[in-house]
Amino acid sequence: MSSTNFLSRHIGPGAKDIPEMLAAAGAASLDNLIEETIPASIRLKKPLNIPEGISEHGFLKQMKEIAGKNQLFKSYIGMGYYNCYVPGVIQRNIFENPGWYTAYTPYQAEIAQGRLEALLNFQTMVADLSGMEIANASLLDEATAAAEAMIMFFNTRSKEKEGAKKFFVSKECFPQTIDVLKTRSAPLKIELVTGSHEDFVPGESFFGALLQYPSCSGEIHDYRNFAEQMHAKDIQVAVAADIMSLVLLTPPGEWGADAVVGSTQRFGIPMGYGGPHAAYFAVKEKFKRNIPGRIIGVSVDAQGKRALRMALQTREQHIRRDKATSNICTAQVLLAVMAGMYAVYHGPEGLKKIAGRIHSMAEQLAEGLEKLGYTLANKSWFDTIKVQIPASKSGEIKDRALAARINFRYADDGIFISLDECTGKDDLQSILQVFASASATRKQNSSGSSSIPETLRRKSAFLSHQVFNSHLSETAMLRYIRSLENKDLSLNHSMIALGSCTMKLNATSEMAPLSWPEFANIHPFVPADQAKGYQQITEELEKYLCEITGFSAVSLQPNSGAQGEYAGLMVIREYHIQRGESHRDVVLIPSSAHGTNPATAVMAGMKVVVIKCDQKGNVDLADLREKTSLHKNNLCALMITYPSTHGVFEEAVTEITKIIHDNGGQVYMDGANMNAQVGLTNPASIGADVCHINLHKTFAIPHGGGGPGMGPIAAAAHLAPYLPSHTVVKTGGNKRITAVSAAPWGSASILLISYGYIRMLGGNGLAEASRIAILNANYIKAKLEGHFPILYQGNKNRVAHEMIADCRQFKTAGIEVEDVAKRLMDYGFHAPTVSFPVAGTLMIEPTESESKEELDRFCEALISIRNEISEIAGGKADRHDNVLKNAPHTAAEASADEWKHPYLRTKAVYPAPWIKENKFWPAAGRVDNAYGDRNLVCVCPSVEDYAEITNA
Amino acid sequence: MSSTNFLSRHIGPGAKDIPEMLAAAGAASLDNLIEETIPASIRLKKPLNIPEGISEHGFLKQMKEIAGKNQLFKSYIGMGYYNCYVPGVIQRNIFENPGWYTAYTPYQAEIAQGRLEALLNFQTMVADLSGMEIANASLLDEATAAAEAMIMFFNTRSKEKEGAKKFFVSKECFPQTIDVLKTRSAPLKIELVTGSHEDFVPGESFFGALLQYPSCSGEIHDYRNFAEQMHAKDIQVAVAADIMSLVLLTPPGEWGADAVVGSTQRFGIPMGYGGPHAAYFAVKEKFKRNIPGRIIGVSVDAQGKRALRMALQTREQHIRRDKATSNICTAQVLLAVMAGMYAVYHGPEGLKKIAGRIHSMAEQLAEGLEKLGYTLANKSWFDTIKVQIPASKSGEIKDRALAARINFRYADDGIFISLDECTGKDDLQSILQVFASASATRKQNSSGSSSIPETLRRKSAFLSHQVFNSHLSETAMLRYIRSLENKDLSLNHSMIALGSCTMKLNATSEMAPLSWPEFANIHPFVPADQAKGYQQITEELEKYLCEITGFSAVSLQPNSGAQGEYAGLMVIREYHIQRGESHRDVVLIPSSAHGTNPATAVMAGMKVVVIKCDQKGNVDLADLREKTSLHKNNLCALMITYPSTHGVFEEAVTEITKIIHDNGGQVYMDGANMNAQVGLTNPASIGADVCHINLHKTFAIPHGGGGPGMGPIAAAAHLAPYLPSHTVVKTGGNKRITAVSAAPWGSASILLISYGYIRMLGGNGLAEASRIAILNANYIKAKLEGHFPILYQGNKNRVAHEMIADCRQFKTAGIEVEDVAKRLMDYGFHAPTVSFPVAGTLMIEPTESESKEELDRFCEALISIRNEISEIAGGKADRHDNVLKNAPHTAAEASADEWKHPYLRTKAVYPAPWIKENKFWPAAGRVDNAYGDRNLVCVCPSVEDYAEITNA
Repeated sequence: MSSTNFLSRHIGPGAKDIPEMLAAAGAASLDNLIEETIPASIRLKKPLNIPEGISEHGFLKQMKEIAGKNQLFKSYIGMGYYNCYVPGVIQRNIFENPGWYTAYTPYQAEIAQGRLEALLNFQTMVADLSGMEIANASLLDEATAAAEAMIMFFNTRSKEKEGAKKFFVSKECFPQTIDVLKTRSAPLKIELVTGSHEDFVPGESFFGALLQYPSCSGEIHDYRNFAEQMHAKDIQVAVAADIMSLVLLTPPGEWGADAVVGSTQRFGIPMGYGGPHAAYFAVKEKFKRNIPGRIIGVSVDAQGKRALRMALQTREQHIRRDKATSNICTAQVLLAVMAGMYAVYHGPEGLKKIAGRIHSMAEQLAEGLEKLGYTLANKSWFDTIKVQIPASKSGEIKDRALAARINFRYADDGIFISLDECTGKDDLQSILQVFASASATRKQNSSGSSSIPETLRRKSAFLSHQVFNSHLSETAMLRYIRSLENKDLSLNHSMIALGSCTMKLNATSEMAPLSWPEFANIHPFVPADQAKGYQQITEELEKYLCEITGFSAVSLQPNSGAQGEYAGLMVIREYHIQRGESHRDVVLIPSSAHGTNPATAVMAGMKVVVIKCDQKGNVDLADLREKTSLHKNNLCALMITYPSTHGVFEEAVTEITKIIHDNGGQVYMDGANMNAQVGLTNPASIGADVCHINLHKTFAIPHGGGGPGMGPIAAAAHLAPYLPSHTVVKTGGNKRITAVSAAPWGSASILLISYGYIRMLGGNGLAEASRIAILNANYIKAKLEGHFPILYQGNKNRVAHEMIADCRQFKTAGIEVEDVAKRLMDYGFHAPTVSFPVAGTLMIEPTESESKEELDRFCEALISIRNEISEIAGGKADRHDNVLKNAPHTAAEASADEWKHPYLRTKAVYPAPWIKENKFWPAAGRVDNAYGDRNLVCVCPSVEDYAEITNA
Repeated sequence: MSSTNFLSRHIGPGAKDIPEMLAAAGAASLDNLIEETIPASIRLKKPLNIPEGISEHGFLKQMKEIAGKNQLFKSYIGMGYYNCYVPGVIQRNIFENPGWYTAYTPYQAEIAQGRLEALLNFQTMVADLSGMEIANASLLDEATAAAEAMIMFFNTRSKEKEGAKKFFVSKECFPQTIDVLKTRSAPLKIELVTGSHEDFVPGESFFGALLQYPSCSGEIHDYRNFAEQMHAKDIQVAVAADIMSLVLLTPPGEWGADAVVGSTQRFGIPMGYGGPHAAYFAVKEKFKRNIPGRIIGVSVDAQGKRALRMALQTREQHIRRDKATSNICTAQVLLAVMAGMYAVYHGPEGLKKIAGRIHSMAEQLAEGLEKLGYTLANKSWFDTIKVQIPASKSGEIKDRALAARINFRYADDGIFISLDECTGKDDLQSILQVFASASATRKQNSSGSSSIPETLRRKSAFLSHQVFNSHLSETAMLRYIRSLENKDLSLNHSMIALGSCTMKLNATSEMAPLSWPEFANIHPFVPADQAKGYQQITEELEKYLCEITGFSAVSLQPNSGAQGEYAGLMVIREYHIQRGESHRDVVLIPSSAHGTNPATAVMAGMKVVVIKCDQKGNVDLADLREKTSLHKNNLCALMITYPSTHGVFEEAVTEITKIIHDNGGQVYMDGANMNAQVGLTNPASIGADVCHINLHKTFAIPHGGGGPGMGPIAAAAHLAPYLPSHTVVKTGGNKRITAVSAAPWGSASILLISYGYIRMLGGNGLAEASRIAILNANYIKAKLEGHFPILYQGNKNRVAHEMIADCRQFKTAGIEVEDVAKRLMDYGFHAPTVSFPVAGTLMIEPTESESKEELDRFCEALISIRNEISEIAGGKADRHDNVLKNAPHTAAEASADEWKHPYLRTKAVYPAPWIKENKFWPAAGRVDNAYGDRNLVCVCPSVEDYAEITNA
């Protein structure tokens, strides 16, 4: 028994509100509403077999116990993951601040200038450190970033290279990177060739190559000749580079790299047993329109003021479906913000001190080991040293190291030691002590190693922009962080009713354990017995997700929804291959699907066939039958979202899945809309075989301003054996595919959030959350439908957890849906999803966490905007100079000396009475997207550039 | 060695700024500047003997080790301290949020509406629960609140009662409360009479009485008859009541209490080994103008909109010097905000559940104990049960309890068990198990106890205001907290240059350990061996403070600066008494002293004699000699602030202290300005005997929006034996005075902050911080002195760490200093100290944490305002309708449809170019102080009242 009940904190409507809301929606009871919404045939017959919800304090107490099962050894394992210090001011004011972590992806630039600026800092930092011209706003992890580079090179091959299918991978790359490259190359028929870069002879059949810098063994190779040879053969060179080393080393951009990728984890992001971290991706100018993921760019707003936005946005939000060259549609925004802020806080001089200190520690370690008589395998190093020790001898050292609570990386011919920001003199002593008393063969000689070769010492300046040289005291940094936060509208201000994105409560109790050292400071490759706490979480979470989906196995590896889709399709692909049906390569996708579905199918080497939707927004059964019949022999799978992207529980879903199965296909369910299913129906019930689950939507992981996400997949028994493996740590089934992510359990640390969500709600609470989500949506529908056509409804005129409000009819008044979206900002609201899945509409999803009062305010805002449109249509307001076209209105505009609009200032900025009490001022006026794309600037502009833009 | 250096994070100016700033200030070097500022005679001859500063991560690592030395037993000790759950949303968004904890006292109401509203909630909660008509915004702790009630009754005795000097104290009050009453009554010649309320026969000589409800032993007495009898004799009744019990019990206001006091700790404030917590103080209407401390009241702003403010402010900030009836000049704002939010989040129904559950657990415990054959001493209880066990037998139970990691409260004739919000069924089992296997005498009978007597069950409703019934989901609560935070200007926005208040950085690393359970969840009265971590901190901190002050002993007990003053004077008083010189009762105080000095002297039973200041602001030596000579025989002490409240290191200070000593007096140094002394000079060097140290000023404890503070005192060897004791836990010297605070080490948990500050800066860093504080002040002086007369400077025209900018000359233009203060808000700055120590002036203290850029912006703002004043003086701007008189300008005003002022809107709200990027909008226009004091409303107004005020 608990004094408070988490369910009542998680859901918005109070007990007294629910009857009123039901009455408004015309439902006799909540049970009746659900019956009218979800087809009886797919309703669960019994409650979820998940324990009753526990209290928040009960959960935290349990988590303390679980945390205690993780053991914090000193890990010198490296391989892309390093200990680091998260500056307190960043930890508290970004990582632990809902103002930052509950924000949505910055599609609405005018109310996202804060994190857009932070991301521009990140891009500038990456470009400067890598020596490249342009960088994106982060990718999921280093391994997938490397894969994206490979695919970008592949897709941009010159005409002469059209037949080239080979990609060279240095064997000195991280093994998990090579593993992900294997996964990603196979379906695209790219042939990976792994070997030594020194021996490699480039041939015509190669289009690209990947190197690691410094190498996995710590060596700092001079790749200049290699790059020249490649370029001579029109082969593009990607480099996976350690961001911290680039402070001291000649950046790859200065010796010929065409793309540089890596992780920014060690810039102040906790290891978290594998993630989330922000990978970076930087390229030469020539690739600027081929970069995967998101890029933040500089543009201007309606007043001609500098304003930031996501550049080339059509490449991304409106991903190019089956023409896509990547299925990436998220970033690791929160982590990229943190890494960028780490650079802002330390500045170039601080970074030099940190990198210099790490390197100096490595020097001392090398010296100490040589004094002890050990031979080093490296000729050079930044932070990683390989001690030559035969496998037969290394066991003893390993035992001693474990006894001293130290983890090294062990190979057959030696032991690797990677140092980091947290390594102190006492740590060096402990390491040397382990080696000192071991009976390994000793040689009292010097390796003659040169540490950092003179030719590879960095000479060029970096981070000379003002932002990296202005906020070096904690007070200044605190104010900078806060000033950016103030520009962004997040869940701590008002509802963000993003259709399909499920912006529900991210409860503090769910978030708190992420800050605990036992979860934050653990390397993903530690021996399993040091991570028993994490194992308990992942095992229980997998079990719960199986129960929720009705499936028999789960892989927690995929790092985002799109990656989950990819993993799911790759599992289906492998299933067909291992059954001798590798020719099955046609994927059916309804026209209403999210753009990632076809993009992912293409990435998985599939052919996309689009299925029409009928007028009600449902899959056109006739068309489905026809296409299925046509592609019967090669049918691989159907991808279907349920409830549909139109926000409806299609009655025919079981018939649809049966048609696919009858024709030898598998059914992939896109889990974007799971929030309406949990505890009421499930993917297995509708006949799906595999699905992904957006933990950052349905299971309370915050959106982080545009990432991190998590997209585990759940699979039926016959697909379970194919779930992805990992090259370092065992995961997956017995016929498993290679890895889709760098880390075995993806972004393991944020799994804690979803685990907490499930534990605190319990089986009944989960179902109740779904029921209230449906109630909230139908309540909004009831309030809005007299003012906006609500497209697509179920047989009983119910919507699921979201609905589409049509704005196309306003075009006659010259009003686009975008104008409605921007006008909502003046009312203090973030727009719902714009023009998806139907152009010209808004898709509204309130979630269960919003209170009746907030829903009322939101509806009042939309209805008021509707009236404003009527004034325009009726000629009472000007067609061009009106509150919608000029929205959003900034404080600067509203308090300007001159006011030229035909409407009043108060109508512009205080259009409803409750706004005065809690006004959110957009930091920018309407941002000019076209200008930004024409004048692509993706790093912090210099003061001169800034002036130029302002005067533009 | 560390990769980052805390000093460089703590101080604002960068290495390249310092030479520029010195040049501007006309100083050859920082050493020279300090030499010109501080008299050579009192400069320290050697560096502080405090270890070198450690890194932030090094500090946190060390704190983890220290935390491990505290042992978290289950404590059922009660006595005013209880386990409770801090709701996560409050913990993260208030307790751990610099937006809340770095704010200053809400003197500038227009930019403090957020916490003013939170405090009004607190007052409403207290008034409702206690059944009283008016409550203040918190006091330091329950014991001092009881003392304030006693003194309020004493000071407001009716004419007939003029001779009455006796105050009855129920022996069932908490012992620490009785102890503090002893301290506080003695110097005022109040005679405490302790006894049973049942036996007490009120006589003419009594003016008041104090009861505990429920009593210290848990009994719920029906005090109705007692109260009636007292009132019949014109005796006022104060009740110390448990706030949680009042949810279920008839509130004292309904059975005759005239004042109700208590602690709100168990409303979601960590025990923190004694504090800080918010005590409450509620009274009948008749006392409304006699309430000590701060009261928040409702008023209107310049636009006629409802706005909050500190009511009757003259009673407080401008404390009535030697006419004062209390020396309280702070509150526990951060904690009061949290307790109020706890009530907002739980609402009346949630509180009933919590209190009901606690009570139900106590019922079950009682039943279980009786079943085991124990006899209960209570006839009734809310949460505390006394088990009758002779001392001879209780040892065994104690041993068993300790083995089970359980703390009870042990008395000679029984064991007390106090349950709380965190007590679960499993805890009851553990308790019963301890008793079950003990061999105590058992009797198988029923006590016939009635738990809560029917006559004392609460019937009246409470917390029916909307605010306590609207934010019950976490999402709603998060938004409410944020909406209030947005209204307040705190250090995360800009410099708060409060003279004498030292608003420096409150570093995250200093704050972080407060959240750790090992420090947060420990009862102040646990056995010493369970608090070894705290002991290490207090011992080391005492040692450091001795080194810093040059004294030989420290008491960490005083909970605020004023309480430190009081403790210091009481120590001096006791010194004289024990030397047989109890007649020494004259305290000399310079006219420039802070008002608390004379107020404190009065509270300590002293006679105040004011010493004049000369034209340079220094103590007038001639007057000092004259007054000293006049009062030679009765001279008790001199109270002196150093550097002076005028911001100058007086050269004559050693001469001054010598004069006092030569005449048998002691020197009390007010430590408000210690920030300019640390590491450069010290109180011992200037000849003081005892001083207090504002840890919330000099030693980085944040101001919390108006508390908590800490005011430890340091004393020379001859005074050390008199430092205060505590009745439950041993503290103080061998001739110690009784306690000044409820808890042995005051607000122990925030000592961690000052400890961290000292450990991370180290001896040299502390001195460097003082040097930079002086540099920053002299840099501002150099920039401002061409525009504002800077009053009072040292011989070499240097100011110390702060300065006084004169604004009196603007009166000819009709401009008051208040107008300048309010106009600063339009520039995004909080005003410096207004009209202290000189009316009509601003006292500016930048601290060492502000960067040159911020100082430049601040000076630019003041100079710009100076030019605005010139426009008025020169007739270019209207005398009445100008940017100063109308300041601050709100967003609503600036974007109103109509603009009637003769100046432009942009001049009003964007008077400097950098404001546009980071505008802070005041939430209210100029608040009407007189209206609020005339129409005193100190609880949340009802909707009707609200409408009335708005239309007023």
